[in-house]
Amino acid sequence: MTAPVIDLNADLGEGFGRWPLTDDEALLSAVTSANVACGYHAGDPATMRRVCALAAERGVRIGAQVSYRDLAGFGRRAMDVPPDELAAEVAYQIGALEVFARAAGARVAYVKPHGALYNRTVSDAEQAAAVVEGVMLAGGFPVLGLPGSQLLAAAHQAGLTAVPEAFADRAYTGRGTLVPRREPGAVLLDPDAIVERSLGIARHGSVRSVSGAPVTVRARSLCLHGDTPGAAALASRVRGELLAAGVELGAFA
Amino acid sequence: MTAPVIDLNADLGEGFGRWPLTDDEALLSAVTSANVACGYHAGDPATMRRVCALAAERGVRIGAQVSYRDLAGFGRRAMDVPPDELAAEVAYQIGALEVFARAAGARVAYVKPHGALYNRTVSDAEQAAAVVEGVMLAGGFPVLGLPGSQLLAAAHQAGLTAVPEAFADRAYTGRGTLVPRREPGAVLLDPDAIVERSLGIARHGSVRSVSGAPVTVRARSLCLHGDTPGAAALASRVRGELLAAGVELGAFA
Amino acid sequence: MTAPVIDLNADLGEGFGRWPLTDDEALLSAVTSANVACGYHAGDPATMRRVCALAAERGVRIGAQVSYRDLAGFGRRAMDVPPDELAAEVAYQIGALEVFARAAGARVAYVKPHGALYNRTVSDAEQAAAVVEGVMLAGGFPVLGLPGSQLLAAAHQAGLTAVPEAFADRAYTGRGTLVPRREPGAVLLDPDAIVERSLGIARHGSVRSVSGAPVTVRARSLCLHGDTPGAAALASRVRGELLAAGVELGAFA
Amino acid sequence: MTAPVIDLNADLGEGFGRWPLTDDEALLSAVTSANVACGYHAGDPATMRRVCALAAERGVRIGAQVSYRDLAGFGRRAMDVPPDELAAEVAYQIGALEVFARAAGARVAYVKPHGALYNRTVSDAEQAAAVVEGVMLAGGFPVLGLPGSQLLAAAHQAGLTAVPEAFADRAYTGRGTLVPRREPGAVLLDPDAIVERSLGIARHGSVRSVSGAPVTVRARSLCLHGDTPGAAALASRVRGELLAAGVELGAFA
Repeated sequence: MTAPVIDLNADLGEGFGRWPLTDDEALLSAVTSANVACGYHAGDPATMRRVCALAAERGVRIGAQVSYRDLAGFGRRAMDVPPDELAAEVAYQIGALEVFARAAGARVAYVKPHGALYNRTVSDAEQAAAVVEGVMLAGGFPVLGLPGSQLLAAAHQAGLTAVPEAFADRAYTGRGTLVPRREPGAVLLDPDAIVERSLGIARHGSVRSVSGAPVTVRARSLCLHGDTPGAAALASRVRGELLAAGVELGAFA
Repeated sequence: MTAPVIDLNADLGEGFGRWPLTDDEALLSAVTSANVACGYHAGDPATMRRVCALAAERGVRIGAQVSYRDLAGFGRRAMDVPPDELAAEVAYQIGALEVFARAAGARVAYVKPHGALYNRTVSDAEQAAAVVEGVMLAGGFPVLGLPGSQLLAAAHQAGLTAVPEAFADRAYTGRGTLVPRREPGAVLLDPDAIVERSLGIARHGSVRSVSGAPVTVRARSLCLHGDTPGAAALASRVRGELLAAGVELGAFA
Repeated sequence: MTAPVIDLNADLGEGFGRWPLTDDEALLSAVTSANVACGYHAGDPATMRRVCALAAERGVRIGAQVSYRDLAGFGRRAMDVPPDELAAEVAYQIGALEVFARAAGARVAYVKPHGALYNRTVSDAEQAAAVVEGVMLAGGFPVLGLPGSQLLAAAHQAGLTAVPEAFADRAYTGRGTLVPRREPGAVLLDPDAIVERSLGIARHGSVRSVSGAPVTVRARSLCLHGDTPGAAALASRVRGELLAAGVELGAFA
Repeated sequence: MTAPVIDLNADLGEGFGRWPLTDDEALLSAVTSANVACGYHAGDPATMRRVCALAAERGVRIGAQVSYRDLAGFGRRAMDVPPDELAAEVAYQIGALEVFARAAGARVAYVKPHGALYNRTVSDAEQAAAVVEGVMLAGGFPVLGLPGSQLLAAAHQAGLTAVPEAFADRAYTGRGTLVPRREPGAVLLDPDAIVERSLGIARHGSVRSVSGAPVTVRARSLCLHGDTPGAAALASRVRGELLAAGVELGAFA
């Protein structure tokens, strides 16, 4: 019997100029895939260069974390961007990151939308198609997203690898969808619970839903949050317990 | 005897969002090399995509017109950017443009600094080195600049092709340097004079200096300004008269 | 019998740095109220200063044309900005403009949202309330908007003067609402028709709807577009024909 | 004999959107004057509103900390901004802050340039004059700066109150000027030394220079840095020791 395999991804390089945010060094010791901010919601060229160099050095894969153009709002404000502009903006960000990945001897390996763009493309087919168009413009990359999202559907339809991910710190409904952030209990803070859910997702493809019953969560990658206090320590612990439980950590194709 | 060969370059894609500026279509009918704005002083992703597609279609080479990060000042305000930040900013811009060049079936073929960065790197060796470091980070490209500039010296030293250019609408001193813009008569406006000087530079490598005596101007490319009224018409006329005079128009290596 | 009175408003100062847009001088000869861009979708401090000085010189009232923070999209991308951020952003813009109005010996006299913020606050009560909160934060100003909009309702409820405006170049439905821009015929381009509709609105409070039947349009101000070719000439003609028809041009209280 | 009086100022509100920086609450318990960032190098409208409300509540005076337009560089990159643009940019920032000061029941009480603009206007008379022009445009405010600077000279000449400040954590030359930051020992980190120097400046107008000899430092305000770890605790300690030594803390006129 083969060991279960899962990828660990987190957002990195989310500082901007004078303002640091993510503990990039520590997170790179825990994850297998780094979603690197590309300058539209966070990230500046010098940070992108540094994070790509560190990631390449440690064998962590580099993904383009693309966003709406919104530094003031950290990419958390949904925007009605016309599809042709959105596609071009996505491609622009991927290309900018690619320079630093290559300079570090690596390549951009996948794309994942950030914040409001991630949430919007779960259900907005037009913007999902625009993001995928941008990914194609930039050469075509695997797309990381929510199972069942319009984004993954559009990626699949375009012939791209669509990679479903799960969240160990988010509550799931009985149908396997995320409980909206505004609802109480939507985000788990207890490290023990998060570790336990990480194991459940990685080993059994299953997590306890808000009703208490287990629900199937098919995921090739597990998203760990990087911008909260204690994030790096928790990521490190999740990594350790997954390995101890016989789970293999491995980036998706 | 072989015909003299010269490249014609102009700044393109210098609109931003709602604001158009350069007449990109018309300029692309005249030039052999297009200095495409990359989003730091002008240019947005959708414009970059469109201009690259048009340029590729017409066989015009695409260059990255890199700048200080200064949309509000159109890149015309010299800035004391630390060298490591400047290098990363230059690489970022080249990478972003490369995506659209490739999507159009072409490649970025050279790099030319814009505005205040162009002027500053004539004499500022530290910033010149930073720009060249950024060009190297992005993979290494020919660099277009002023003969005798620190920029071309740094490019040459890094093993890059250093391409000297001349200006048909700028007054030259007796030593072959440009008369500073602030001085009266520094910028020529008379189309006949500009055409005549274009011919002199392309055919004889010579232009009449402010003192009236001819001065040698070694240039592999001739820069035509694209953001003034009548710019596209003048570029078209220069092109026509050069061809009529037996000059071959050809991009540099 | 008293003459009908109407205000003429247009968007001004919508250039940004190197990029001009509106013909501010010409428009200021035609309108009675200038909606001056405040730097969030267009407008830079030097332009704001210049336009305020010109407006004050000609006795044209200065209004703050507030927007989402979106220079790249010219404020035309609706954004899900949290209400407290939106309120503060609106106040920020008004305060910045007030400096230049006062320096010119005038004052900000009213507030009008721009582009996507204007459209969104027609029906989005939360954002309408946030805009009004921002207006109150800045000291309280009359608010110019669409009759029946959530924006004017919120302004009225807050004790502010709510000023309804009409559009002479937009098609109206039989219920007196605007035909959405995407629909064919939504925007009128024929100068004669626009002049005729201006007269109808100003003299009779009535305009022909798309069905051909007249529909009542109650408006204290008439909005003329400033960023289209020929805008200034058309504004001047509308002004002239209104005066010739005995309509009095007068800013609202 | 009257007690010596000194003002304590620090930079506040220097976060931007998602990125916090200064511990505004703690600093407001220590200082008498708050240099509030106005959005050009740091600060966003919601932060400005919050900081002004807190400052007003605690009786701390609000100053406009104006900067070059450079969020990516935190205002630390000197820029060749044309004087008319710089003056307008300064006025814009003051006006934006004034809204939030007034909404909190206070007023902007003074202006202090930030970072590279502060350093540049020590010796650049043209930019110093432009800053003062901007201050005048905004209505005229006391200007806080370095003794002997072009900035204070220009402020004085314009009839504004010119307020000299000193730095307890910076090394001074024998002539009473600051040792440039690049030189070793230019910035003091030892809290005890900083406290001692604060006392010397406040009580005797004197500080030990790098040569070991005391040098006169005339200052009406003492600048405490707010963006370093432990900054708020150090500010609080300086405040306590000054009070214990009989120094009166008082904002300048």
